[in-house]
Amino acid sequence: MRDASIYAHQGFANVLGFGRKSAIIFVDFTVGFSDPEIFGGGNILSAIEASESLLKAGRELGVPICHTRIVYADDGSDLGVVAMKVPKVATLTESHPSGNFVPSLMPVTGEYVVRKTQASGFFGTGLAAWLTSRGADTLIVAGCTTSGCVRATVVDAASANFRPIVAADCCGDRALESHANSLFDLNQKYADVIDSAKIIAHLRGSGGQ
Amino acid sequence: MRDASIYAHQGFANVLGFGRKSAIIFVDFTVGFSDPEIFGGGNILSAIEASESLLKAGRELGVPICHTRIVYADDGSDLGVVAMKVPKVATLTESHPSGNFVPSLMPVTGEYVVRKTQASGFFGTGLAAWLTSRGADTLIVAGCTTSGCVRATVVDAASANFRPIVAADCCGDRALESHANSLFDLNQKYADVIDSAKIIAHLRGSGGQ
Amino acid sequence: MRDASIYAHQGFANVLGFGRKSAIIFVDFTVGFSDPEIFGGGNILSAIEASESLLKAGRELGVPICHTRIVYADDGSDLGVVAMKVPKVATLTESHPSGNFVPSLMPVTGEYVVRKTQASGFFGTGLAAWLTSRGADTLIVAGCTTSGCVRATVVDAASANFRPIVAADCCGDRALESHANSLFDLNQKYADVIDSAKIIAHLRGSGGQ
Amino acid sequence: MRDASIYAHQGFANVLGFGRKSAIIFVDFTVGFSDPEIFGGGNILSAIEASESLLKAGRELGVPICHTRIVYADDGSDLGVVAMKVPKVATLTESHPSGNFVPSLMPVTGEYVVRKTQASGFFGTGLAAWLTSRGADTLIVAGCTTSGCVRATVVDAASANFRPIVAADCCGDRALESHANSLFDLNQKYADVIDSAKIIAHLRGSGGQ
Repeated sequence: MRDASIYAHQGFANVLGFGRKSAIIFVDFTVGFSDPEIFGGGNILSAIEASESLLKAGRELGVPICHTRIVYADDGSDLGVVAMKVPKVATLTESHPSGNFVPSLMPVTGEYVVRKTQASGFFGTGLAAWLTSRGADTLIVAGCTTSGCVRATVVDAASANFRPIVAADCCGDRALESHANSLFDLNQKYADVIDSAKIIAHLRGSGGQ
Repeated sequence: MRDASIYAHQGFANVLGFGRKSAIIFVDFTVGFSDPEIFGGGNILSAIEASESLLKAGRELGVPICHTRIVYADDGSDLGVVAMKVPKVATLTESHPSGNFVPSLMPVTGEYVVRKTQASGFFGTGLAAWLTSRGADTLIVAGCTTSGCVRATVVDAASANFRPIVAADCCGDRALESHANSLFDLNQKYADVIDSAKIIAHLRGSGGQ
Repeated sequence: MRDASIYAHQGFANVLGFGRKSAIIFVDFTVGFSDPEIFGGGNILSAIEASESLLKAGRELGVPICHTRIVYADDGSDLGVVAMKVPKVATLTESHPSGNFVPSLMPVTGEYVVRKTQASGFFGTGLAAWLTSRGADTLIVAGCTTSGCVRATVVDAASANFRPIVAADCCGDRALESHANSLFDLNQKYADVIDSAKIIAHLRGSGGQ
Repeated sequence: MRDASIYAHQGFANVLGFGRKSAIIFVDFTVGFSDPEIFGGGNILSAIEASESLLKAGRELGVPICHTRIVYADDGSDLGVVAMKVPKVATLTESHPSGNFVPSLMPVTGEYVVRKTQASGFFGTGLAAWLTSRGADTLIVAGCTTSGCVRATVVDAASANFRPIVAADCCGDRALESHANSLFDLNQKYADVIDSAKIIAHLRGSGGQ
């Protein structure tokens, strides 16, 4: 049996739909992830470009917006398993240029910035509490990498009962096979995976909810 | 650039190695996941067979062992986003046969059973606290599905700084492409992915540590 | 400076008020906590009596309701630090009479039952996810003991940005000084502490929101 | 029945003892909490003085050390329930003098600094993961306020199965009754509460374990 057909046979991939109120998260769109010599590559640059429209629409409509970045301590005191696997994450410190947001997706005042050291935007952060404070039950997800921090964030969102809506064209990965496979898996089990044009159309139609 | 080569170029996939003390987790090896008509299929049956040897060795050597199963309330009061996406998970209740462990991997007295409603064995459970109480810093992972509950558990283990060692042949998935891709991703970013024979050899050589 | 005055001087104890939508939690009103020979005593019986009215009103008005109980594994495989400090918690197993709810506050179908091993109803459970799935931003809290599981649950609710409203007369403790002091602390820092009559009046006035 | 006697009758307050390896946490010893006009008062200054000796001993013996401070975003985007209850916490931003550590307990390179927005040092932070990475199973706790951030941190440590050892004289509170009552409660249910002299003696005797 081919992959998609066994999922269909077992009743996966139902549509969540948008809930009562959405927020948008931009995961790890930082300089280091836009540069193939550091952590970038693949289709990340096109994801950044698509995300610019999503961010613009979200701001116009007053949607609660947050951004994540990886920040390790200057002295490495909080490095752990991930840094054993991928030592270069240790360079992503507070003031290192690689760790700053790309200029076109720079947070503005009032947008919540999640500092994190792990893949998921929820792990060891205030993200769930922030969504609760905003009354959000739906989390629109853009970011990189699809198979890394995006996927981990989406899985945690689903576990915490925030409906994840993945903006497919706003997600990028250095590895295109992993990108495609993660979007497939996420759509089967955890999230609605749709294009940002449809998401923006929904937000415009609902007055930003 | 092909997927593996960009990871190599950016310095991923270093080896974690075993830490000071290991525990083993068997993720969701329950009846429903062994049956292709429910949630099974693919290479899950062969993962069960390989896991029998790992469990036997772990027991002989006194390694702390835990097992996860999905348990939803009989009245559906704890159903959430995942059950919207995959409605059939609602059948996995306390006493439904689908939710019980497969006979060959049935927990015995003293082994910790994690009841969970989400993909990750860590989310909303006492798993991290149990590992801490056992002094474990390394988590050997077997189970199904590779791209679902295994992957989510491994990512959370890495985030919590327990070194994940994935027993490749003891993991199974209904979807073989997703299985292979998840093992690839996990090995690049979060875990050592090795065969159970090597894991058992390590445990024997270290007296079960 | 007396305790209350320094808090006033520093600007503590502002009123949260009810949010958009409330849920009610009844913490650990089980047989063992109603019996002074086990874990009961103090004013717990009067808290149970007051809670009966709160539960009745909540049900009439369709407020989402949950109940917590402590459940340890029969084989003690999940005992930890709290059980070192208070060994008798090990008796609170699935089928032991001490661990069952008191008859007058027995959950009914559709009410969420949180199984927990720690003080807080949030720690290692699906409580936050359940509140999110219900769209609740406010958590009305009754239960025992005030200085133990109630307080821990309230602190976590505030941390997760669910507004805690403590029903003062529906909370009880084996130790009356600790009860009074915890209500004082909670009201200064984390919660509104008010009588259940006022809470019920609010719920009636808002149609159960 | 008096408070202590009912606890004794029910078998509370057993001794945890030190485990295999300790870490030390200094909770919120920042300028704002040392000043009675901001968040200080009571016996916090004497707790700071006692903590200086504990920190010195910990450093000499190579004990893993961490420090917590409250840090809210400059734009208030992460304010939540606690800030509704205590609005002045909004002043504790990255660069505001109130939020910086007191000079005598300033972290040095290699000591882990936990940035937090909630009472507990564990909530929404990497503290548990850091303890795991250090192989610690015991958490020595100093800080302020005893009834606030110290207590919440201790309760979470116990829940996560890190043995909490509270350095009684190194904890302070603006409210002396709450201080005494919290030490009493913590010792009954969650932690060993002992003087720092005994803790330092243990660490010296065990070579910093």
